[in-house]
Amino acid sequence: MAKVVVIYSGGMDSYTVLNKALQQGHEVFALSFNYGQKHSRELICAKQVCEDRGVTHKMSDITAIADLLQSSSLVSSDIAVPEGHYEAESMKSTVVPNRNMILISLAIGYAVDIGAEAVWYGAHSGDHTIYPDCRPEFVEKMNEVSRLANFEVVDVYAPYLYKNKTDILRDGLAMDLDYGETWTCYKGLEKACGLCGSCVERLEAFAALERRDPVAYD
Amino acid sequence: MAKVVVIYSGGMDSYTVLNKALQQGHEVFALSFNYGQKHSRELICAKQVCEDRGVTHKMSDITAIADLLQSSSLVSSDIAVPEGHYEAESMKSTVVPNRNMILISLAIGYAVDIGAEAVWYGAHSGDHTIYPDCRPEFVEKMNEVSRLANFEVVDVYAPYLYKNKTDILRDGLAMDLDYGETWTCYKGLEKACGLCGSCVERLEAFAALERRDPVAYD
Repeated sequence: MAKVVVIYSGGMDSYTVLNKALQQGHEVFALSFNYGQKHSRELICAKQVCEDRGVTHKMSDITAIADLLQSSSLVSSDIAVPEGHYEAESMKSTVVPNRNMILISLAIGYAVDIGAEAVWYGAHSGDHTIYPDCRPEFVEKMNEVSRLANFEVVDVYAPYLYKNKTDILRDGLAMDLDYGETWTCYKGLEKACGLCGSCVERLEAFAALERRDPVAYD
Repeated sequence: MAKVVVIYSGGMDSYTVLNKALQQGHEVFALSFNYGQKHSRELICAKQVCEDRGVTHKMSDITAIADLLQSSSLVSSDIAVPEGHYEAESMKSTVVPNRNMILISLAIGYAVDIGAEAVWYGAHSGDHTIYPDCRPEFVEKMNEVSRLANFEVVDVYAPYLYKNKTDILRDGLAMDLDYGETWTCYKGLEKACGLCGSCVERLEAFAALERRDPVAYD
């Protein structure tokens, strides 16, 4: 059993990571970031899940840094969230510049502060094509730099780094998780849009396992 | 000539780095962080210097993240800034958890956003004992991870990594820089205290070169 920080967006990947850490008996500190994303509904899910499980939940408001990172459609109000499959070129506009390094760096700082020995997060192989900061070599290098950045050694760990979204869902369903407790859609409206890259990928994972997604779609 | 982001605190090290980049003919984008440090006077110096030189200056307010990093005396109002030499054990309380990784990560994000090819910052050998995130192996690893974290390659460069504060001051004086334009004291009062680790180190550098520090001391 270890004290670990889980970067928890409220989406299905990090939800599964959070529950995996809990099932392994770790003392979990969930950390969510509000960085001005349009889909802040996922943060409401994150809060509720942590309350239900009695997990310490830290919500870090980093909206003030959004003006450093204007080029992404996920934070800029001038750019519409693109629809379609993640593999499309248009999806590149959903890349928040250097997002994972920023979030992991903050999580490592929090880990040092509370004496946790690792930061877990939900990078997976499905993200590799579109997000360079989800690739295994990135995560390995982040782990190396994290181990020598502070007096305290903090490991960076992505349990699903070599798995895809369907594998994650399969693992979560095997843990009896209820994905109605998660939020994925980038648009953040009342119901999920079913059209953005994030929705498409989620629906594909449920379809691959021949299961019904409990979230309501428009 | 390149487009570079300089992390510029307003202190003498980053002031020298900023001017070095300018003298080399680079197109400089200065980036300062307000992270709730008590010595915000250095930010006022930073702003003035950029105005005087016509350098684009971005001030990023990251005070909201201070509650993730409570253990440091530089950000916590519960802990007094220690006096004495940097080498003393008490100085460890001035370590902001994972500070440099956080600031560099944000600077890399900004660099990607504006299309800059490098982030310069003022790590130097005098900081190595006390701050793990100023050591050469940290900077090298940050450079490696930065080069693969985004579609755009951004280098992380610390021109004085193997130099000490006296070397930096010598280089700056050779460039005819006026260190009255900088602020170093951690306490951030009307005059520099002359007693905190930062002041002590600065005064030692001026003494080593037999020069008078133009800043007023209490």
